[in-house]
Amino acid sequence: MTSTLILLRHGESEWNAKNLFTGWVDVALTEKGRTEAVRGGEQLLEAGVLPDVVHTSLLRRAINTSALALDAADRHWIPVKRSWRLNERHYGALQGKDKKQTLDTYGEEKFMEWRRSFDTPPPPIEDDAEFSQVGDPRYADLGADMPRTECLKDVIARMLPYWESDITADLAAGHTVLVTAHGNSLRAIVKHLDQISDDDIAGLNIPTGMPLVYELDDSFSPVERGGRYLDPEAAAAAADAVANQGR
Amino acid sequence: MTSTLILLRHGESEWNAKNLFTGWVDVALTEKGRTEAVRGGEQLLEAGVLPDVVHTSLLRRAINTSALALDAADRHWIPVKRSWRLNERHYGALQGKDKKQTLDTYGEEKFMEWRRSFDTPPPPIEDDAEFSQVGDPRYADLGADMPRTECLKDVIARMLPYWESDITADLAAGHTVLVTAHGNSLRAIVKHLDQISDDDIAGLNIPTGMPLVYELDDSFSPVERGGRYLDPEAAAAAADAVANQGR
Repeated sequence: MTSTLILLRHGESEWNAKNLFTGWVDVALTEKGRTEAVRGGEQLLEAGVLPDVVHTSLLRRAINTSALALDAADRHWIPVKRSWRLNERHYGALQGKDKKQTLDTYGEEKFMEWRRSFDTPPPPIEDDAEFSQVGDPRYADLGADMPRTECLKDVIARMLPYWESDITADLAAGHTVLVTAHGNSLRAIVKHLDQISDDDIAGLNIPTGMPLVYELDDSFSPVERGGRYLDPEAAAAAADAVANQGR
Repeated sequence: MTSTLILLRHGESEWNAKNLFTGWVDVALTEKGRTEAVRGGEQLLEAGVLPDVVHTSLLRRAINTSALALDAADRHWIPVKRSWRLNERHYGALQGKDKKQTLDTYGEEKFMEWRRSFDTPPPPIEDDAEFSQVGDPRYADLGADMPRTECLKDVIARMLPYWESDITADLAAGHTVLVTAHGNSLRAIVKHLDQISDDDIAGLNIPTGMPLVYELDDSFSPVERGGRYLDPEAAAAAADAVANQGR
């Protein structure tokens, strides 16, 4: 028996539009981002790929993308589960910093290392910094799990327990599962599913608002490596644009 | 130990605006309804009455009111639970009918009986009628529980099991609980809480988008009968307007 997993990256946020490092800072969608979310939901409806349950991060750009897409797909009424383990990568001291300015200040090598290195996180954020999440009630129970910075390896390490405990449980129950999350938490899932190497994952970009559909076998391995975008041409063009961010 | 329950009726829907009987027909909020929902959330934020968990019906006007209010209150990330048992009263064969026209056709007595009688439901809707919900996937598991019409007594009977199993469980855990629902499912809760008689409940109107807050003791009885609106003057004016609907 196969099950269906749909990955959806949130639409453009206010800080995507301003070209700032966002991470765990809880910014809103732009009007463009809201339109992307609705379009993603319309693609699900048109393709007849209809989620039975949705998992989101604790960040409003993913939560609102999920709500808008599900409303457009007439699936707004399905059960919802949320976890900090689906949050975007914590960008440490870079949170709130301008990407272009960071590139100019630190140079191409450092910039690309912080953006794309598998296991080198940016410098940690101070607990009393403007864009720290220490003290935010939604993370009150995290204790020692609360990150101050993360590399992709860290994201995978905190995402996988939720994949194993909650997402695969819904897949095993035969549900079509939507995960609405972020560039890096979704790259973590795709790396795990497609067994992409630590080096090759740097080249993988997931476009915003484009449902990526995986059929999974009963050991949760993809029937087709890489899955399929419901609109492959638009997804390819959008992924190229993501790769050139900050340039 | 007391716990806090917040009741929030969805903002204006497209069919409120058109003066049609809605019931289980899944219509969207109007722009005014969206604004009401945001204002409701702002009232929660301003009063510091912050929900830890939200319960909604399966209808988009309540689901979207909940999402907009929680986003405005910066509580969009809390756990969400949904149940058909919080749906609006099923209006039977009146669903989709114009209220004014129904009043003119059937006369004041019949009209008020259908709107306000405690135990006389409107005629049932045919399963193949345009505004029947038979065949809607969200109700696929209801079986014999699927209503074709309801009076308020019926709403209470199908709401109470969810109150006992899910809502009081969250209250008992010490959570501040938000219930975002409908005129009649919320009247059912208020009737139960305040032990209002079958006759007197006809006179109770709950305004849209106005958080109604109950402090409950450990047997889930109100510390103050009737609870309190965070904006009492606006709530009183709005309740008067609801009472005059269809005139």
